[in-house]
Amino acid sequence: MTENTTAGSTGTAWVYNFGASGTEGDSSMRNLLGGKGANLAEMSGIGLPVPPGFTITTEVCTYFNDNGREYPAELEAQVKDSISRIEAETGAHFADPANPLLVSVRSGARASMPGMMDTVLNLGLNDETAAGLAARADDARFAYDSYRRFIQMYADVVMGVDHGLFEDALETMKLNRGVFDDTGLEGDDLKTLVEEFKTIVQDEAETDFPQDPWVQLWGAVGAVFNSWMNARAITYRRLNSIPASWGTAVNVQAMVFGNMGTDCATGVAFTRNPSTGENSFYGEFLINAQGEDVVAGIRTPLPLTRAARQDGDGESMEEAMPDVFAQLDVVRRQLEKHYADMQDLEFTVQQNKLYMLQTRSGKRTAEAALRMSVEMAEEGLISQDEALLRVDPNALDQLLHPTLDPTAEKDVLTRGLPASPGAACGQIVLSADKAEELSGAGHQVILVRLETSPEDIHGMHAAAGILTARGGMTSHAAVVARGMGRACVSGAGELRFDEVSGTVFIHETQLSEGDIITIDGSSGEVYRGAVATVQPRMSKAFSTIMEWADERRRMAVRTNAETPVDARTAVGFGAEGIGLCRTEHMFFDQDRIIAMRRMIMAADTEGREAALAKLLPMQRQDFEELFSIMAGLPVTIRLLDPPLHEFLPHSADELADVAEAAGVSNETARQRALKLAESNPMLGHRGCRLAVTYPEICRMQARAIFEAACAVAATGAAPVPEIMVPLAATGKEIALCKAVIDEEAEAVMATTGQQLSYLVGTMVELPRAAICAGDLAAEAEFFSFGTNDLTQTALGISRDDAGAFLHYYIDAEIYAKDPFVSIDRDGVGALVKIGVEGGRSQRPDIKLGVCGEHGGDPDSISFFEEVGLDYVSCSPYRVPAARLAAAQAAIRGQD
Amino acid sequence: MTENTTAGSTGTAWVYNFGASGTEGDSSMRNLLGGKGANLAEMSGIGLPVPPGFTITTEVCTYFNDNGREYPAELEAQVKDSISRIEAETGAHFADPANPLLVSVRSGARASMPGMMDTVLNLGLNDETAAGLAARADDARFAYDSYRRFIQMYADVVMGVDHGLFEDALETMKLNRGVFDDTGLEGDDLKTLVEEFKTIVQDEAETDFPQDPWVQLWGAVGAVFNSWMNARAITYRRLNSIPASWGTAVNVQAMVFGNMGTDCATGVAFTRNPSTGENSFYGEFLINAQGEDVVAGIRTPLPLTRAARQDGDGESMEEAMPDVFAQLDVVRRQLEKHYADMQDLEFTVQQNKLYMLQTRSGKRTAEAALRMSVEMAEEGLISQDEALLRVDPNALDQLLHPTLDPTAEKDVLTRGLPASPGAACGQIVLSADKAEELSGAGHQVILVRLETSPEDIHGMHAAAGILTARGGMTSHAAVVARGMGRACVSGAGELRFDEVSGTVFIHETQLSEGDIITIDGSSGEVYRGAVATVQPRMSKAFSTIMEWADERRRMAVRTNAETPVDARTAVGFGAEGIGLCRTEHMFFDQDRIIAMRRMIMAADTEGREAALAKLLPMQRQDFEELFSIMAGLPVTIRLLDPPLHEFLPHSADELADVAEAAGVSNETARQRALKLAESNPMLGHRGCRLAVTYPEICRMQARAIFEAACAVAATGAAPVPEIMVPLAATGKEIALCKAVIDEEAEAVMATTGQQLSYLVGTMVELPRAAICAGDLAAEAEFFSFGTNDLTQTALGISRDDAGAFLHYYIDAEIYAKDPFVSIDRDGVGALVKIGVEGGRSQRPDIKLGVCGEHGGDPDSISFFEEVGLDYVSCSPYRVPAARLAAAQAAIRGQD
Repeated sequence: MTENTTAGSTGTAWVYNFGASGTEGDSSMRNLLGGKGANLAEMSGIGLPVPPGFTITTEVCTYFNDNGREYPAELEAQVKDSISRIEAETGAHFADPANPLLVSVRSGARASMPGMMDTVLNLGLNDETAAGLAARADDARFAYDSYRRFIQMYADVVMGVDHGLFEDALETMKLNRGVFDDTGLEGDDLKTLVEEFKTIVQDEAETDFPQDPWVQLWGAVGAVFNSWMNARAITYRRLNSIPASWGTAVNVQAMVFGNMGTDCATGVAFTRNPSTGENSFYGEFLINAQGEDVVAGIRTPLPLTRAARQDGDGESMEEAMPDVFAQLDVVRRQLEKHYADMQDLEFTVQQNKLYMLQTRSGKRTAEAALRMSVEMAEEGLISQDEALLRVDPNALDQLLHPTLDPTAEKDVLTRGLPASPGAACGQIVLSADKAEELSGAGHQVILVRLETSPEDIHGMHAAAGILTARGGMTSHAAVVARGMGRACVSGAGELRFDEVSGTVFIHETQLSEGDIITIDGSSGEVYRGAVATVQPRMSKAFSTIMEWADERRRMAVRTNAETPVDARTAVGFGAEGIGLCRTEHMFFDQDRIIAMRRMIMAADTEGREAALAKLLPMQRQDFEELFSIMAGLPVTIRLLDPPLHEFLPHSADELADVAEAAGVSNETARQRALKLAESNPMLGHRGCRLAVTYPEICRMQARAIFEAACAVAATGAAPVPEIMVPLAATGKEIALCKAVIDEEAEAVMATTGQQLSYLVGTMVELPRAAICAGDLAAEAEFFSFGTNDLTQTALGISRDDAGAFLHYYIDAEIYAKDPFVSIDRDGVGALVKIGVEGGRSQRPDIKLGVCGEHGGDPDSISFFEEVGLDYVSCSPYRVPAARLAAAQAAIRGQD
Repeated sequence: MTENTTAGSTGTAWVYNFGASGTEGDSSMRNLLGGKGANLAEMSGIGLPVPPGFTITTEVCTYFNDNGREYPAELEAQVKDSISRIEAETGAHFADPANPLLVSVRSGARASMPGMMDTVLNLGLNDETAAGLAARADDARFAYDSYRRFIQMYADVVMGVDHGLFEDALETMKLNRGVFDDTGLEGDDLKTLVEEFKTIVQDEAETDFPQDPWVQLWGAVGAVFNSWMNARAITYRRLNSIPASWGTAVNVQAMVFGNMGTDCATGVAFTRNPSTGENSFYGEFLINAQGEDVVAGIRTPLPLTRAARQDGDGESMEEAMPDVFAQLDVVRRQLEKHYADMQDLEFTVQQNKLYMLQTRSGKRTAEAALRMSVEMAEEGLISQDEALLRVDPNALDQLLHPTLDPTAEKDVLTRGLPASPGAACGQIVLSADKAEELSGAGHQVILVRLETSPEDIHGMHAAAGILTARGGMTSHAAVVARGMGRACVSGAGELRFDEVSGTVFIHETQLSEGDIITIDGSSGEVYRGAVATVQPRMSKAFSTIMEWADERRRMAVRTNAETPVDARTAVGFGAEGIGLCRTEHMFFDQDRIIAMRRMIMAADTEGREAALAKLLPMQRQDFEELFSIMAGLPVTIRLLDPPLHEFLPHSADELADVAEAAGVSNETARQRALKLAESNPMLGHRGCRLAVTYPEICRMQARAIFEAACAVAATGAAPVPEIMVPLAATGKEIALCKAVIDEEAEAVMATTGQQLSYLVGTMVELPRAAICAGDLAAEAEFFSFGTNDLTQTALGISRDDAGAFLHYYIDAEIYAKDPFVSIDRDGVGALVKIGVEGGRSQRPDIKLGVCGEHGGDPDSISFFEEVGLDYVSCSPYRVPAARLAAAQAAIRGQD
């Protein structure tokens, strides 16, 4: 609770006024006044024409929610005072038929928040003031149109009356009067409609529509605060990592009217083009309309500028209201300069007088964000650092992947998690083999699976996109798809597989192999049929930002890659080495998995060595390609990591094939598979435990690495292999593996006569490894923090199983963000810090990096900068985002 | 490496002499000289008759193993010098036929170590010196008997020649001569035998038996050092937590002969009775024999004292050699007083002269250890603290459980892990239901399973013992069996289940239900048929030690218990409360599991609440019983912990029953079960994640606890429930559960009018919980460290799957001890320490305990004392051990 609130009983300011007669807030008070309130105060403070009003602070919202929906005792008096100020400034008065004060009531949180009660306009109208307003404006139509709008809005959002009932009554009235547009109704018609509306309210809400403006005001204020806790708002906050504790403010402001005649208008504008980023005034307006009409699309709004006018459009504002437009254009420049950012404005013109109703930082596409940032920096409006900070690294993904054509029709079948960005469209296939087959025959396919496993890799490669029923943002499907740059929607829980018929159900929709669907890996949506996609193109601004980012960042950016395709992609995106090459992915090819399984089935070391000898030349070939592509760059190769049972098939039939290939009996194969089965594979016989118990596996891999490195060194730049021992918890494990690796290095160098530098290090992915980092660093020449597994073990959460409860945890704000997406600083982060300190204290020059999924997450990258890692490593398509995020982190670190 | 070794090149003493002409070592130098060497030096130093000799230090062993089996350069000269000293003292000389020096070569590590090369006697004999010895002693029989024994021993242990070949030749010789005993052979026979033995050596070892005493000496020394690394020694060290780095020493000592005539003898003695602890001289001797004859059992040794002589025995030493006996009795008293402990002595009488060959602390039964400690303290020989330190807490288990009759015949079928102490015998049953059925019909049964799960609890209760094929010392079977005080052998990997015939195979042995076996949970052995067992009885010494322990310890000792039987047992053993009541164990009864499964199958909160309402009265009843038994003592109750799928059956048929009982379709049940299935249940939807996502479960349990507590408080001592939130990683989770618990407490107290004290705390069993302990302690009023799960997550080792690699890890000394048995101080211990500090810094009076299996392990208890926990909690039968270990830890902590 803030100081202000606790001081509540002794005179807290719960209300902040703005207007010509004095403004108490400014744009720095966003947390207290919300974005809208702070900006209204700011505009008012710098002398722009803002109708007077006041903001009820976010602290009232918090108080309201913490105290059984009661207000602080002082609030009522403060609101009364503020209304009096508005009355004094405008000369209008609440409930005064002669000159009634009408106000708008709007919510305004710290961050923009759809899903909440938004706006009630024309509050203050009742039977008497409506009549008074009609008389004063000499315009019954205007007065009763305003009144019926007010009843409709208020009854909907405050009293919970179905909006459609009012629409129906309006339509009936138009039919009866034989008019097509709302504007065709006369004042009397609308007055009659008001009576009908009031009857609807009484029937539905079982109470009269409130006539007292004070009752109206408190009703609207309460509705805003209640809406902070409605389901849509809660969902939105979860998706956007907004804590419930922020609360919303309420803005109450004197109404101005864009619908009082043809010298009135209302509009929205962006100080630059929010879609392309071009530096041109962009917006729409409507003459004789209220703000909502522009948005609602009942009438087609017109462009602001002559330049934007299309053939057939009516007059632009620049033509129709040249003086007011000129004034608006000045305000536009003033505001953009004042805020040093593109603004999204709302304005109203009442009888040729301009009023500014809102300014805020404008939303923009990733492309526009890039272009504006670069151009504003080049214009001198902002610094290069600021330009870098303005671009959301996550949004860069949009620029690298195909996206759905925004104009295309879409039929949403279901939703999952946006696991790997980009859109893809193709025939459904239910198996990896089928994916490969159809793709080979020239078809685009979407691989649809309950979940994927390493055995599906070839199918994932063959597919344009992957859709799974299970698994989260860091499931196998998600991680591999991001690595490959394939679109992926994971965890689409409504998918049901009917194995008998080989079809997939989504509710009643039955999909068979060959049916076409489209998935959007950026939104998580799945569509029926083909939705057109558009290909990305890289802009000049993109290259400029990347250049600036590279100049600014301290940390290197590497990539997680094991295939030549991934490695080349990553180098193209600016990767400065490989931070994680997962060698197990190399063993799933048809030829290799046979040798791999023969090794698993072997009864003894000799049998394993014979099988490994078959794998050696293949591994060597893999590494030769990688070393050639990454010429001169470091390549971190992780020794075999998954438990051996991951390489065995699941069905008895397939296991019989394995038995035959390995030359053992079915029973032996079954027993061996049974023996390898694990209750908790995540915590099982994997990582360096394989190398410790089967040193021959480590030996083969080390030999393949050194033979490949020597071969590449003989003809080009000598690679520096960094051999990584996974899942170590003790220095001894690393020492045991290092002994084998060093032996092979020596042997290969002796044979080839080639001298090589190489490092042996470890992946710090267990809490004990972090705690005992000094012990590990005595053996390891580098640490790569494997924050995926470190998160799983430190938090005790299996990412494969987290779907059942993790969303509750995010909703309940137990973890502010999904800890597999953004590092849990207090827990996992603290362990990383302990690991960094322990490692450096033992070996001051130890190389430190991170290769978990967090390596591509901007918030996490910011943390890694704080603890001083040397590099981050992420999937190829995240490399640009990581470069930018690293630069942002460096800039923030300097402040 | 020690200072001594690194200074090697500048004059390290690699050899320490002892004897009448000067002794360089003493009993404090055990690490350098080994136990035997240090005690020989000590005895020599205090003037006892010890044949002269020297000890080659343990550092030579380390040097030898670290340097490719080479000796330090200075060693040879030092050994030569030492041999010269012996020669000077004895007047005998190496290779001198006139008066040949013969020596024994014995290994001697810091701790007693079976499995290594033990002894070579009579070294120095060759064809010439044997002849000389025969002449000098005027006894060819003696000389050639000594020579043939030497060849046999030396060829076996140094040259690797099969021992049996010599035995065969000896038997053949006896047959040929028509004699029954070895003593029947004449000098010439033995001389012939020596030639035959030398031929055997030449045939088998393909080299001559060495004639040069120096070659013999270095051969024997090398054999000792090599044997330090043989498989049996390595296994022994693993089982006994002895680091390989300790090394062994080698003792070379002038021979004395107990077999030179009837004025010669040899014997072993204990200064008190090692079996009962009684303060009486205890031992055996043989006239005209070498030491090995006493042990080998070729001749039946006779008692030392007249009192110990049975009818039909020959004369005791007291009668046969009264003077020497009197001298020995003086030495006995002197040594016991000198060492202030019961000694195990070896002596030889050569021509009526007594020689002491060894003294060491004597092994004793648990009962003897208790009695001796108490009596020695009462005699003033040692302090009470010392008495407490003398008793091995682990050995107390022996005193609480039935044991195998040591005199019974046994036929070992296989071996597993000694998972829960005690012996049990009964019919094999292969299912829990069958166990219950047969036990109900009055049969003793042994439940034999691949592994056990919570569903087997009723069968485990019904069985006298449990035998499993899978799982380690902390598997479900082991933990539950220890809790119940049932004998258990786990991880007997040679068991094979044939599900078709319902039989079990052990190699070729087929066992069916109804067949009788016996298991020894203290040794891990499994026997065919019924082996008689003997029931324990508690001695007076036991109570005395427990009293002294209770006075001395700082930490409280609680128990892990959930059944009235366990709780009563534990209170009987001195438990001071319940530290862990696992509520899930209460849900596996037939009635309850139905309600539980109905809850799991429920589609919504209402359905769950309806099912929970059925469980509420049963839970309340459980807690009422526990609170009554533990009257006045604290009871820590853990909320439901395991993932819900643990309560579902595995087969489709059983699931169909569940569906019917729950009133859902089979398909719905299947889908629900599928949805609940987890890849890594250990890291899944369990612990407080259940309470967070289904608060109604927590609510029901809280209500049952408070209703029970109020009911008990109404008629007796008010219990203090300590409600424990499991698997929390954040303060918020605890806060959410606490809110529900507090609500129920308030409601129940309002209804009953009873006021209750209670605590809400958490189990610290995740690394994040330890790291963020301050955050947790803001909500939690106590911490109980759940070091089982903390070990699994910190080390990333699933205890269910660890069997595949953990023994390699112990062998390779990656972990010095099984981290599930004894806490890993550097990793898990460090996290506990961080948790303790974090908890206390936030809440100085926070109550801190441990409830993992480590709570009953003496080494771990010692650690918990160091970090200052308030209590440990362990299974009922471990309570006495924990009380003693806590006292020992307090004593050690004070030093």
